[in-house]
Amino acid sequence: MKILLASNNLHKKQEFERLLSSHTISLPSDLGITFDFEEDEPSFTLNALGKAQSLRALVPNEYVILSDDSGLCVDALFGGPGVRTARYGMDVFGRMLQSEERNEFLLKNLRHLKTKEERKAYFVCALAVVFDPYRVFTISESVEGYIANQSSGVKGFGYDPVFVVSEIDKTMAELSDEEKDRYSHRGRASRLLATLLGGMK
Amino acid sequence: MKILLASNNLHKKQEFERLLSSHTISLPSDLGITFDFEEDEPSFTLNALGKAQSLRALVPNEYVILSDDSGLCVDALFGGPGVRTARYGMDVFGRMLQSEERNEFLLKNLRHLKTKEERKAYFVCALAVVFDPYRVFTISESVEGYIANQSSGVKGFGYDPVFVVSEIDKTMAELSDEEKDRYSHRGRASRLLATLLGGMK
Repeated sequence: MKILLASNNLHKKQEFERLLSSHTISLPSDLGITFDFEEDEPSFTLNALGKAQSLRALVPNEYVILSDDSGLCVDALFGGPGVRTARYGMDVFGRMLQSEERNEFLLKNLRHLKTKEERKAYFVCALAVVFDPYRVFTISESVEGYIANQSSGVKGFGYDPVFVVSEIDKTMAELSDEEKDRYSHRGRASRLLATLLGGMK
Repeated sequence: MKILLASNNLHKKQEFERLLSSHTISLPSDLGITFDFEEDEPSFTLNALGKAQSLRALVPNEYVILSDDSGLCVDALFGGPGVRTARYGMDVFGRMLQSEERNEFLLKNLRHLKTKEERKAYFVCALAVVFDPYRVFTISESVEGYIANQSSGVKGFGYDPVFVVSEIDKTMAELSDEEKDRYSHRGRASRLLATLLGGMK
C-alpha cells in the first residue's frame, strides 16, 4: 500500500519504513502538503485518530493515511504524563523542557519511590489508519517497564534513557534498533497493524 | 479468548459467536452485570470505544471487552442517518419509529432520486476491543450499496430490507446467514478483528 504518514518527522518515517517494510511510506512534505495538528485529545487513540482524519481530506485516495501518538504512562502519576508526555514539566509561560531536563524532572518527582513495582510505567503507542470515513482502524499497544533510578544508554530519544523494559531489564536507550523494534510499544503496534493490513482483501 | 460483549442483545451474541468462532462470547447479564450506555458520540468508532471502555472497569481482567456500533450512511443525506440510525425519523416527543415506519420514511425522503449512484449508501460497523487502558483496538468497516425503491426480503432487521448490496444486487434482508457474514459490514469488521486477535502473542 501507499501510506502517507501524518507527521513531519523524518526519523519516524524511517522507523515505519523498517516496521512496515512491505508498504511505501511518504510524508506530507513529499506531496507538497503542509501539515500540523494540535494533539489535545484525552487519549493516544483519539489523538492519532484526529490527526489521521484531519489529513484524509487533503490527500488523494490512492494514499492510506497513517498516524501515531505515543507517550509514557507512570502508575505513580496516575497514568501521567500520558497524552501530555511532551509537555511534562512545562512552565507557566509554556516553555517546554528539553528531553534531558524532563528526564531529570521525572527522576526527581519519583525519588521517594524505591521498588520496581512502585516505579512501574508503560510506553504506549496508538496508531490510526484511515482509508475513508467508513474504513478506519486504530491500534493502541504498550510495553511494560519501570522508571530507572538514573539515565542510561545513548540511543533513541525522549524518555528512552530512563525507561527500563521489564522483560529484558535494559533501558530503551540501551537497545539496538532490532531489539527496540521487537520490544517497543511502536514495534508491537506496528506488527499488529501489518497483520491487520495483510488480512484485508 | 474469553470475550465479554458490551451489549444486551442475544441476537448479536449469536452473530458474534458465528463470526468469532474460536473465542467464547458472554454478555454482561451472564455475569450478573447490568449494562447500559448512551451512544451519543459523533462517530461509530467513538461510540464503540466509549461503550467498551465504560464496561472495562466493571469486569475481571480475564475477559476482553468487545463492543460494536453500526448504522446506515446515505450519501444523499450527507452520511446520515449515521450515528443517529436508530433515531432517524424520531418525533419531537422522542418517540422512535418502528423499523418498518423508518424504512418507509427513508424511501419517502429519497423518492426524487432515481439512479443507484444517487441512492448510494453504506452500512458501517465499528468494533472496539479493550484489554486494558493501554491496549485498545478499533476497526470500522463498511459495505457499499444503494437504497432500494421498495422493501424486499424478510431476514435480518432494521434497514436490511431497503439496503441493496452492490456486489450481489440483493437486499441485506434477502441474504442467507452465510451470505450476510461474507458481505456485511459486521462480517468484514469481524474477520479483520479475528485476524488481529490471531496476530497477538
